[in-house]
Amino acid sequence: MKRYRLCFLGFGNVGRALARLCVAKSAELRDNYGIEWEIAGVATRRMGWRASDDAIDVQRLLAGNDETSTELGINEWLARARPDVVFETTSLNPETGQPAIDYLKASLQHGAHTITANKAPIVYAFDELNEIAIAKDRGFLFEATVLDSAPVFSLFRETLPAARVRSFTGAFNSTTNVILETMEAGRSFAEGVKTAQELGVAETDPSHDVDGWDSIMKVCALARVIMRTPLLPREVRREGIRGLDPATLQAARAEGKPFKLVSRATMNADGSVTASVRPEQIAASDPLGGVRGTSLGIHFELDIMPGLTIVSHRPNLQSTAYGLLADFINCHRSRPPKDT
Amino acid sequence: MKRYRLCFLGFGNVGRALARLCVAKSAELRDNYGIEWEIAGVATRRMGWRASDDAIDVQRLLAGNDETSTELGINEWLARARPDVVFETTSLNPETGQPAIDYLKASLQHGAHTITANKAPIVYAFDELNEIAIAKDRGFLFEATVLDSAPVFSLFRETLPAARVRSFTGAFNSTTNVILETMEAGRSFAEGVKTAQELGVAETDPSHDVDGWDSIMKVCALARVIMRTPLLPREVRREGIRGLDPATLQAARAEGKPFKLVSRATMNADGSVTASVRPEQIAASDPLGGVRGTSLGIHFELDIMPGLTIVSHRPNLQSTAYGLLADFINCHRSRPPKDT
Repeated sequence: MKRYRLCFLGFGNVGRALARLCVAKSAELRDNYGIEWEIAGVATRRMGWRASDDAIDVQRLLAGNDETSTELGINEWLARARPDVVFETTSLNPETGQPAIDYLKASLQHGAHTITANKAPIVYAFDELNEIAIAKDRGFLFEATVLDSAPVFSLFRETLPAARVRSFTGAFNSTTNVILETMEAGRSFAEGVKTAQELGVAETDPSHDVDGWDSIMKVCALARVIMRTPLLPREVRREGIRGLDPATLQAARAEGKPFKLVSRATMNADGSVTASVRPEQIAASDPLGGVRGTSLGIHFELDIMPGLTIVSHRPNLQSTAYGLLADFINCHRSRPPKDT
Repeated sequence: MKRYRLCFLGFGNVGRALARLCVAKSAELRDNYGIEWEIAGVATRRMGWRASDDAIDVQRLLAGNDETSTELGINEWLARARPDVVFETTSLNPETGQPAIDYLKASLQHGAHTITANKAPIVYAFDELNEIAIAKDRGFLFEATVLDSAPVFSLFRETLPAARVRSFTGAFNSTTNVILETMEAGRSFAEGVKTAQELGVAETDPSHDVDGWDSIMKVCALARVIMRTPLLPREVRREGIRGLDPATLQAARAEGKPFKLVSRATMNADGSVTASVRPEQIAASDPLGGVRGTSLGIHFELDIMPGLTIVSHRPNLQSTAYGLLADFINCHRSRPPKDT
């Protein structure tokens, strides 16, 4: 039995859902995996850098009843909280990946298994972060970054050894899916944004989704890890959904080939990757044809398999949190704790 | 670097495709996984029990140029061939799983990693086989049994820890898919069977597929392993596709809800599993709506995820062989060789 000190960097909807899921799965973690846990630190903009020698009370934390604000900074926070595992869920910065990259580096340097739901650090700093993780013999995992909960990175790491990805096609963004479907029903772009916000998938400013940046981050992270090819956001052909009007969308839908914001990446013979994120018409018979509403999907062409499609239907906050929990369990299974 | 002695129990289309794939992936296996291999034994009805101290020449074996026939039996064959890994691909016996079960037991008792493409031993003898594997610290894996190549068992073993399957729905049988689609096009059942045979998915006697036994074996294997619930074939409600006529199928197709042979299993509150294999109408918008022709698919409902769909598009012999190769690599990765 190993008791893990968990720290949360960011404690918004996903972090809270993860804390709740850890509580719900406590008995299963203990009985099936030999994992016990306590929360040793939480850092948010509002709360500051909170660290504790004793376990922080989860229910009080979730209820928001014991806010404190301290001015520590990442390194002193890590030194005080002494985490075995850090869950990083701060918000996306698609231009540089900062400050998340610095947080993740510090966490790995500290010797914690480091698990992120943040795409940008994979895009801008995967090699560096991975090297620190290897040097420190700690896990650095990020399953929740692409399909929220459905396995993609662990799929290739664990279940598809010696398989090569020739290309992939993704429907990676539920905000645009919901907006386009709202407009197909004859309503406006603004109403589509509002619907996506009500469903909890769009942020107050939906630009990252609408203009394709969220999808591009996913394409670049996948290219780097499963195609082993660095790909920068500016190398991806990008076209958002703002140029589509309801009439065009309704005609496409009537034709049986509605528009989606589609992500594509193809491995070229010279080892480079060509990638795009743009609206495309997708027939119902297409592997991603069934990805509607808030669902997400990816289709792979592999050297040893003509086609493999993974669809995550209507993932919710608990699903995203599960992606982080699965990473935690896999860190535990693949690197037995040092002090037991 | 570990050099594995491989043995093939059964060397039909799948066994041959696996030998070819091992050749094609030789450099990758050596460079990325530290695996070298040689063929030490092959047993088939036609060839008898062939075992060799030296490596058997793969190209001559694939060309069928050096047939021999010896009367050894499984135990003497294992003793002579001294395999580190046995690939079992003999034909399905849906009533008892024999003689495959005895072969697999002997292989595990001998101390070989034991990998099968055969569903019936999982259905009738999973507990016993798994116990021997654990006692001998060898791998007993069977990824190719359900979706040919797409991960299902390893998906739950490796990538979805602490997830509980509430139910699954499968389109597990390409022969019936092809027959029903041929009949939808106005042709006869017999023409459908012929088409499936020409595509290489149906056997000379397609009864196991047509009457649902192939699908039932998959349902029972999945229930036992991923739902951890024993389920016998006679406990599954079964209805084959022989009762469907072209007019019914065409009407269903015109309605946008064509028939498929659908497999279902649901975990009940009391821990039992209710399962069926029968023709059902499936809308295009259904998670398995896109599974046409020789493709296979499965949809899961999980405690931590509303829905996860995996579709393997038009798997071929190489894909099935890859399922066995992936198991081999995973045996190697999870149980480092004893003698290095």
